[in-house]
Amino acid sequence: MEVGLIGLGGMGTGMAKSLLRAGHRVTVFNRTQARAEALRGDGATVAATPAGACGSGVVMTMLADDAALESLVFGDGGILASLPRGGIHISCSTIGVALSDRLTATHLSAGQEFVSCPVFGRPDAAEAGRLAVVAAGPTEVVNRCKPLFESLGPKLLIVGEKPSLANVVKLSGNFLIASVLESLSEAIAFARKSGVDAATLMDFLTSTLFNAPVYKTYGGLIVEGNYENVGFALPLGLKDTRLVLQAAEAKSVPMPIASVIRDRFITAMARGNSNKDWSALGLVAAEDAGLAPAPNQPKR
Amino acid sequence: MEVGLIGLGGMGTGMAKSLLRAGHRVTVFNRTQARAEALRGDGATVAATPAGACGSGVVMTMLADDAALESLVFGDGGILASLPRGGIHISCSTIGVALSDRLTATHLSAGQEFVSCPVFGRPDAAEAGRLAVVAAGPTEVVNRCKPLFESLGPKLLIVGEKPSLANVVKLSGNFLIASVLESLSEAIAFARKSGVDAATLMDFLTSTLFNAPVYKTYGGLIVEGNYENVGFALPLGLKDTRLVLQAAEAKSVPMPIASVIRDRFITAMARGNSNKDWSALGLVAAEDAGLAPAPNQPKR
Repeated sequence: MEVGLIGLGGMGTGMAKSLLRAGHRVTVFNRTQARAEALRGDGATVAATPAGACGSGVVMTMLADDAALESLVFGDGGILASLPRGGIHISCSTIGVALSDRLTATHLSAGQEFVSCPVFGRPDAAEAGRLAVVAAGPTEVVNRCKPLFESLGPKLLIVGEKPSLANVVKLSGNFLIASVLESLSEAIAFARKSGVDAATLMDFLTSTLFNAPVYKTYGGLIVEGNYENVGFALPLGLKDTRLVLQAAEAKSVPMPIASVIRDRFITAMARGNSNKDWSALGLVAAEDAGLAPAPNQPKR
Repeated sequence: MEVGLIGLGGMGTGMAKSLLRAGHRVTVFNRTQARAEALRGDGATVAATPAGACGSGVVMTMLADDAALESLVFGDGGILASLPRGGIHISCSTIGVALSDRLTATHLSAGQEFVSCPVFGRPDAAEAGRLAVVAAGPTEVVNRCKPLFESLGPKLLIVGEKPSLANVVKLSGNFLIASVLESLSEAIAFARKSGVDAATLMDFLTSTLFNAPVYKTYGGLIVEGNYENVGFALPLGLKDTRLVLQAAEAKSVPMPIASVIRDRFITAMARGNSNKDWSALGLVAAEDAGLAPAPNQPKR
């Protein structure tokens, strides 16, 4: 397929490479143009403006947050103005349910189609075409876009006709991951202070009840105190927790664990960890128990 | 080996059957004697008193809580008085770190050995010999008991010489399971109220990042609202959360998620769910969001 892709952070860049490798013709745009130029070697065409990435009538967006996507869609020379009638906007960013509903209504008014398509996975999975993809939108439109989704990863969930349903699934998943981060951080601090080797504990748990990628990946990072290799930045963890709390409040759903996690992310940022991975919740738990960041590291 | 086993709830009964099937000679005692008699057909010998189960010099205990084990060990005609010098007490109950340390010191004073050996798994796993076993105690004693541990399940972690280290591992694991219960309960309530089919959400998550037994088992129970089939009773969930908070406080480790979960268990019990499985945290989350207990059930 011919497709535009706007937003070339770690995730967007990896997705562009997977789309190109699968044989799609991809026109990329990024505000910092160097990141777009870097994809020429992989076969991408580089657009000078967002409008230039809308020419094929199908554009995917992968931006950091609601504000960035709003500005790209509604701003001067933005997607809403640039996409032809009948064109499709596929939004892959992790955005709020309310913005997803607003985009659905606005694109509909403009005679355009809107599909929500958030993805699960870190940048290495994006580049390897191993993302888990959640899509929602009008069935006929989603079906037309399937070749794109299938290039991003082997696992595709089509969750319904209302685009924001996909955002609910994504926010639920990110909330569950954040819950794992905080509960692992607390359990590891407890075990370390009680004299149990943290690596032994994690090896045992991840080979029995907790034999899942999320525990293996993040358990390893927290045990090692390895928060500098940023797959998902800590402020994005706070942003997603805020989005799930906002969407839950709009539906009158209290989420006590999400509320605690929100405060832990705020503490992590207040202590200067905004440039670290969101697994740095492990650092907060260690510090609050009077521990060094990780077993083999000096106490701060 | 020749071994006594005291405490024939769902877990103890299952463990007795696995030990007998592996060829050990097992003498059982239970306060309600009918549960002991029921094991005669599997080859067990029935003792009339706790002392009668201590005759071989090796006795395993599997009781509901600290108070029950304290009374059995320290009470008149209890294990401390009945076990010969050099005898071994293998404690499989999920007890507190402080009691484990006290038992270690007391048995040592009496010239007896103490091994802590909590297990992970529900009664069906106990009966099938599929428990995950965590043992800690003097190396030579633990090695002598290995044939018993290996009859309980394929996975054995020996965590150190100090018995209470095994209790720290068990409490950490149960805290992580309780965290999964509460976070799943919140995510499922959020998804349901937002119009996402809860079963679809769980199928997707447990086939990707959360592909672990604990999410599959408990996600299924919460989606179905199936809390009557009690694998682990709700008050025991509160008890274990209390034990982890007590042990963590003793080591100056704050655990904000554990504190929230404690309150959720208390709420579940206050609402009359003490006879349900601990996954009934899902009921609390559904009720607090104004939902019926499960998608296909009427609103209360």
